[in-house]
Amino acid sequence: MNYSIITYIIGWIFAFNALFLSIPCIVSIIYNEQSGFYFLFIAILCLLIGAILISRKPKSKVFYIREGFVTVSLSWIIISTFGALPFVLSGEIPSFIDAMFETISGFTTTGSSILTDIESLSHTALFWRSFTHWIGGMGVLVLILAILPLAGGYNMNLMRAESPGPSVSKLVPKIRNTAMILYGIYCFLTVTEVIFLLFGGMSLFDSLTHAFATAGTGGFSTKNTSFTDFSPYLQVIATIFMILFGLNFNVYFLFLIKKPIKALKFEEMRYYLGIITIVIIIITINISHMFSSLSDAIRHAAFQVAAIITTTGFSSIDFDKWPQLSKTLLLLLMLIGACAGSTGGGVKVSRIIILLKTLKKELYSYLHPRSIKKIQFEKKCVEHEVLRNINVFIMAYSAIFGLSLLLISFDNFDFTTHFTAIVTTINNIGPGFELIGPTNNFSIFSSFSKIVLMFDMLAGRLELFPILFLFLPATWKKHT
Amino acid sequence: MNYSIITYIIGWIFAFNALFLSIPCIVSIIYNEQSGFYFLFIAILCLLIGAILISRKPKSKVFYIREGFVTVSLSWIIISTFGALPFVLSGEIPSFIDAMFETISGFTTTGSSILTDIESLSHTALFWRSFTHWIGGMGVLVLILAILPLAGGYNMNLMRAESPGPSVSKLVPKIRNTAMILYGIYCFLTVTEVIFLLFGGMSLFDSLTHAFATAGTGGFSTKNTSFTDFSPYLQVIATIFMILFGLNFNVYFLFLIKKPIKALKFEEMRYYLGIITIVIIIITINISHMFSSLSDAIRHAAFQVAAIITTTGFSSIDFDKWPQLSKTLLLLLMLIGACAGSTGGGVKVSRIIILLKTLKKELYSYLHPRSIKKIQFEKKCVEHEVLRNINVFIMAYSAIFGLSLLLISFDNFDFTTHFTAIVTTINNIGPGFELIGPTNNFSIFSSFSKIVLMFDMLAGRLELFPILFLFLPATWKKHT
Repeated sequence: MNYSIITYIIGWIFAFNALFLSIPCIVSIIYNEQSGFYFLFIAILCLLIGAILISRKPKSKVFYIREGFVTVSLSWIIISTFGALPFVLSGEIPSFIDAMFETISGFTTTGSSILTDIESLSHTALFWRSFTHWIGGMGVLVLILAILPLAGGYNMNLMRAESPGPSVSKLVPKIRNTAMILYGIYCFLTVTEVIFLLFGGMSLFDSLTHAFATAGTGGFSTKNTSFTDFSPYLQVIATIFMILFGLNFNVYFLFLIKKPIKALKFEEMRYYLGIITIVIIIITINISHMFSSLSDAIRHAAFQVAAIITTTGFSSIDFDKWPQLSKTLLLLLMLIGACAGSTGGGVKVSRIIILLKTLKKELYSYLHPRSIKKIQFEKKCVEHEVLRNINVFIMAYSAIFGLSLLLISFDNFDFTTHFTAIVTTINNIGPGFELIGPTNNFSIFSSFSKIVLMFDMLAGRLELFPILFLFLPATWKKHT
Repeated sequence: MNYSIITYIIGWIFAFNALFLSIPCIVSIIYNEQSGFYFLFIAILCLLIGAILISRKPKSKVFYIREGFVTVSLSWIIISTFGALPFVLSGEIPSFIDAMFETISGFTTTGSSILTDIESLSHTALFWRSFTHWIGGMGVLVLILAILPLAGGYNMNLMRAESPGPSVSKLVPKIRNTAMILYGIYCFLTVTEVIFLLFGGMSLFDSLTHAFATAGTGGFSTKNTSFTDFSPYLQVIATIFMILFGLNFNVYFLFLIKKPIKALKFEEMRYYLGIITIVIIIITINISHMFSSLSDAIRHAAFQVAAIITTTGFSSIDFDKWPQLSKTLLLLLMLIGACAGSTGGGVKVSRIIILLKTLKKELYSYLHPRSIKKIQFEKKCVEHEVLRNINVFIMAYSAIFGLSLLLISFDNFDFTTHFTAIVTTINNIGPGFELIGPTNNFSIFSSFSKIVLMFDMLAGRLELFPILFLFLPATWKKHT
């Protein structure tokens, strides 16, 4: 393990976190709120720690996937810890565990909350909550890669450890340019959404915070009722942008370099939009008797399908009261998740497609044992290595899922609450069913369970491996 | 597809089914019950169909895994269909769907029942219900292989399609002898259990039926309350024999050929007994406050752990009222299941161990990308082919699970009921939680859901592939 380079990059993480934390200070000046002071204090603290760590130049540039994993996990734990401190100091979330839960839920773009009354928070705190979604959505290390001229071969190992999906594709040969393009698309889409929300009569503050939460596919709202009390127009806008942010960003890049036909043929996008359309139709039929007009049923079905498959987790209605068929469909969407290369969580559409294609191929190979057929995805043969990674991912996912379910069952709630709590945190969604349904929150859990759920949120956002490696003794050994 | 050989073997299936169906006739004579007449009628019908099919000698001896799969699935569907008819004709289970559900649940050794009052059935019907467990436990084709001198290379393909576990090991070079040894051990253990149960004051009828249900790891009881009202001694005997029947039969074979040290070093057995011990301890602690004495808590914990991990599904108490931790542990045991090469269902201990070992190996290979390490199981390297099969198994399992969950959610019960209904049928266990808990039954489901659950029971017992292949068009094509 090359510790010196890790502490160097962590130094930059502290510096960037100082920058992030200073933004809510502006909000506190506008609204004349006291809590900005605490954000400023922690920002200065982060800046100091960062300066000290950056000043010590790394001795060696050795940087393998192992260092990538450790750097990414530690970075996320650090930004969450220091991001939680202002909540504790200001007394808005007095318990440190709760504040950590809320901040990790923010950065990992989960959107599960322990708050029983969101609207009692200051504007500063509400802004910070939503802003963590925006940072976490695209990733803090991707941002650093976009801005800092870090030379050396380790960029790819950082990018790979933080980006979602079975394989990371570089849009352009240089990692730095790839990161810049991604953040460019991200900013453009966010600003566009803000404009559309403002146009619908939403305040600037609410437009910004809800656009952040949509962009990161997070789901924190500034309202206790999420999108329930917003106008149908605003709900439709949110639906559209949730779907857009759940799309593989490669599609936008293809449009950007004027290859629209190639973009429209993007296989993952077609399956993603296909699943969304089919599920909206089924749910609309299933819930139509609950609404006076068909358009209401379609709007709520579309909103919830978009909110769940993209793992955003907003709610326009209490879908926990829907028939079991619709709820089961939403639960399956929770597991599928958004596209790889998007800001969404879950197993990812591409992994599911590759697994189903593999299943089909393997079944046929029983009939024709001597035939050798490779499966195709995005018009390329899927390499054995990618398949192996997906299988390992599913194994690790199941193991973490089972263990977490067992650990939180000490809290002795009903099975549906426990089960959906794990589903919703490991896939970075937000609400579950029953006691943690869209009108409830996570305050009911014990501190121990909250720690388990925090672990699941981090593991889910970083696609399991970086977090798992923190627990392997071999990770911390010297390079042999 | 070689149809002539399939119909030939199916003919023998009919003949054997005639034999099976004539056994409850003896019971009906003893208890002077009318329903024996219907069993006799169907037995004669099966004998006639069998005779016709056997008389047409197969034109070709070509027999691949494809023929093996189809033969096995069709055999199981046929014995279930004709095994259900006496229930319908006698009016004891008037609905054909219900009678099919009960019979498939019997043959697949699931033990889920649609009966609201088991004790209202005739002795003849009760005997048949339990006897289906005994036939299904070891497998009807394994029995045919043990008895008939079927020459040719297809024996292995039949055995492989019906036997549980990631890989089938022949105990001795000849399949026929392997099948005979397996049935020999099976009969010996069953008779031993009958003797122990008789010794505890159980009637001969109850001893036989409960021994059949234990041997096949089925779970049908002749009492509405299962083992709840039997004495502690009888509960302990059942616990011990459930664990014995969930063990890989290779272990008994090793004892038989006087290799006790090798038997004691059997890896799957060690994990299996290890899991059982640990879970019994945790559950005992978790439920101890519900009992007046520790020995009661241990007895019920051990009984339920044995009943669930072996997928038998007897109950000594309403464990749906236990704390959520114990219930979650039992749910995880449902998924793990018994040993490969036993009469139990589930994913199987060996598959889980191999998956966890693979996960560990793969994680380490990220740290040392150039190291090539094979994982070991039962002191042998696990072949790539076995690993691939396990991965395909897990994929197919997940796909069937998700689809079934969706289909039965039309019934609109709570999520726990739906979820555990699938878990308990696909793993051939019996009871689930909530509306299908140990004191309830499956009569609440619609006919459509019952068909889905029947499919899951068959798919689970035959380890998915034979049943899946029935739905692949390519299966039915001529050999190319």
